[in-house]
Amino acid sequence: MAANISKNMKAVGLFKYLPISDINSLMDLEVSVPVPKQSEVLIEVKATAINPIDTKLRAPKPLIEKEPRILGFDGAGIITAVGEAVKKFKVDDQVFFTADIRRNGTNAQYVALEEIHVAQKPKNLSFEEAAAMPLTSVTAYESLIDRLSITEKDKGKSILIINSGGGAGSVACQLANLLGLKVIGTASRPESMKFSKENGAHIVLNHTQNLVEQLQENKISEVDFILVNYDPYNYWDSLMTLIKPQGKICLVVDSSGLVDLKPLKAKSITLVSEMMFTRIVYNTDDKCRHTEILEEVSKMLDNGKLKSTLTKVIAPINAVNIREAHRLIEENKTVGKIVLSGFK
Amino acid sequence: MAANISKNMKAVGLFKYLPISDINSLMDLEVSVPVPKQSEVLIEVKATAINPIDTKLRAPKPLIEKEPRILGFDGAGIITAVGEAVKKFKVDDQVFFTADIRRNGTNAQYVALEEIHVAQKPKNLSFEEAAAMPLTSVTAYESLIDRLSITEKDKGKSILIINSGGGAGSVACQLANLLGLKVIGTASRPESMKFSKENGAHIVLNHTQNLVEQLQENKISEVDFILVNYDPYNYWDSLMTLIKPQGKICLVVDSSGLVDLKPLKAKSITLVSEMMFTRIVYNTDDKCRHTEILEEVSKMLDNGKLKSTLTKVIAPINAVNIREAHRLIEENKTVGKIVLSGFK
Repeated sequence: MAANISKNMKAVGLFKYLPISDINSLMDLEVSVPVPKQSEVLIEVKATAINPIDTKLRAPKPLIEKEPRILGFDGAGIITAVGEAVKKFKVDDQVFFTADIRRNGTNAQYVALEEIHVAQKPKNLSFEEAAAMPLTSVTAYESLIDRLSITEKDKGKSILIINSGGGAGSVACQLANLLGLKVIGTASRPESMKFSKENGAHIVLNHTQNLVEQLQENKISEVDFILVNYDPYNYWDSLMTLIKPQGKICLVVDSSGLVDLKPLKAKSITLVSEMMFTRIVYNTDDKCRHTEILEEVSKMLDNGKLKSTLTKVIAPINAVNIREAHRLIEENKTVGKIVLSGFK
Repeated sequence: MAANISKNMKAVGLFKYLPISDINSLMDLEVSVPVPKQSEVLIEVKATAINPIDTKLRAPKPLIEKEPRILGFDGAGIITAVGEAVKKFKVDDQVFFTADIRRNGTNAQYVALEEIHVAQKPKNLSFEEAAAMPLTSVTAYESLIDRLSITEKDKGKSILIINSGGGAGSVACQLANLLGLKVIGTASRPESMKFSKENGAHIVLNHTQNLVEQLQENKISEVDFILVNYDPYNYWDSLMTLIKPQGKICLVVDSSGLVDLKPLKAKSITLVSEMMFTRIVYNTDDKCRHTEILEEVSKMLDNGKLKSTLTKVIAPINAVNIREAHRLIEENKTVGKIVLSGFK
């Protein structure tokens, strides 16, 4: 531990799981600075993004925490201490990272993380622009490349991205476009439709209306791939109609209800789920792929192949502002990514 | 059309969809010999296998057919006529084949089929041994190679094959074994357990009892792949528990009830459905893969890498005997494959 770090830090956390309108749903706290273990780095958080996973974890439930639960699962900052076994990083490195869902997160002045979560920050991006990207980029990259197995050979094929204006959806639009796919997004507001097109969607449908009919109006009856960034329960029949024989559907979001698998069979359809935390939480043999993807994303952001999906910065990082970010996500009022910047 | 073929033929078919105990559920008929079109071959059926798809199509329902519906979707026989555009076959070729689910099938003295359904019969096999294999081999091959994407790199990984004693299950045991996987089958009767082991299963569990506990008794907590040859509805929780993170499950049989997709997400699981008829029915760009697999299976049967899963021959081919075969399948009394042999 570097000598100049105080023992306590500011953080935003919770003891009770309450509706976001309750001022105790997320509170300003003073807690101990975490101590990095052997293979961990300690990062001073400069900016942190809020994702739907934060609101899902914070959702009202009877559980009461003994120690404060600090949310926040991606961010950008500066390394301030390294454990003895750390190989890739040194103090003062500027980094961006996904945090560990099993422990306290980035809504705090400091976070301790295993190296596997961390990559060098894209040099050309601000901390805020960088903080917007890790969780959604790894999710979108894994979805397209690792789950849907899209390769060079799929150039010219089509993908429907349900909810293309959100965090993961907008990165997926960029990546699918780079992969040479015909990209059909869906959104419901003028600003999210516009944002989808700015991120590479060739066509944007309105997902509050019939998707099958809208695609037919665009002379498209079926697509090769579907990426679902919103509860698939209400879209299930459309997904089954729109997917090509032997096509693949990736679910980034759970279905809120039970579904009928029968329509998958006639067309020999693949349905795959994507959870960015799987490799790390289950300690899979290929868990280093997480870092590789983060490093690749960093390069792509630096060389301009990918651009940050940051749309809104709120400062400083405190309970009032993080509650506001949660509220915007819960009310589906966001486009791209909201980032909280700096502690006062 | 060769001159020596009469205009009429014996067949077994139905007009009404009745329980198999009803003598009108499958009846002896005399119908016209089909005329092969340009790219079709006419095959004299020497032997035909009965599969669960036959019983599913024949299942009681209110529909009444104007023309008799003739079931039977794989078989072996001799080419007796070829359309003008046929390239791969000539009269007197001995062949085995999957039939076309959209038209009349092989429970008849002659069947007309597009070339894509047909391959040279394995020379070392009898018509009966050959007739047992096409539908289940293509299903098992597609399941393991095309749907679960198992390759050389997966050698040493594990697969759970639910209902390993049936037609597709027993071929899948052989193929999975050849691919170097650790093969865990499931069955419920001593004869189906024995048959699973003869076909390459290293361990055979009883699928009427708790699969998770039985696997734990064998010091296995999770498997890399699962192939489901029986209604997954009652196994759903076990499948979700037993599959490894990022593992893949292939469903050859539909779920009889709605399922909860949520458990797929934490482990980023792939769920894929397999229907042997998909490529042909939907006329996919890769539909020739059907023939390629059938030709590969023919070679593997000839060189002894695969062995026929024929277990029971019933002769001759008539309504009484086909009804008996349907009854055995509907009552889960079969092991491997039942083949009907020869018309009197």
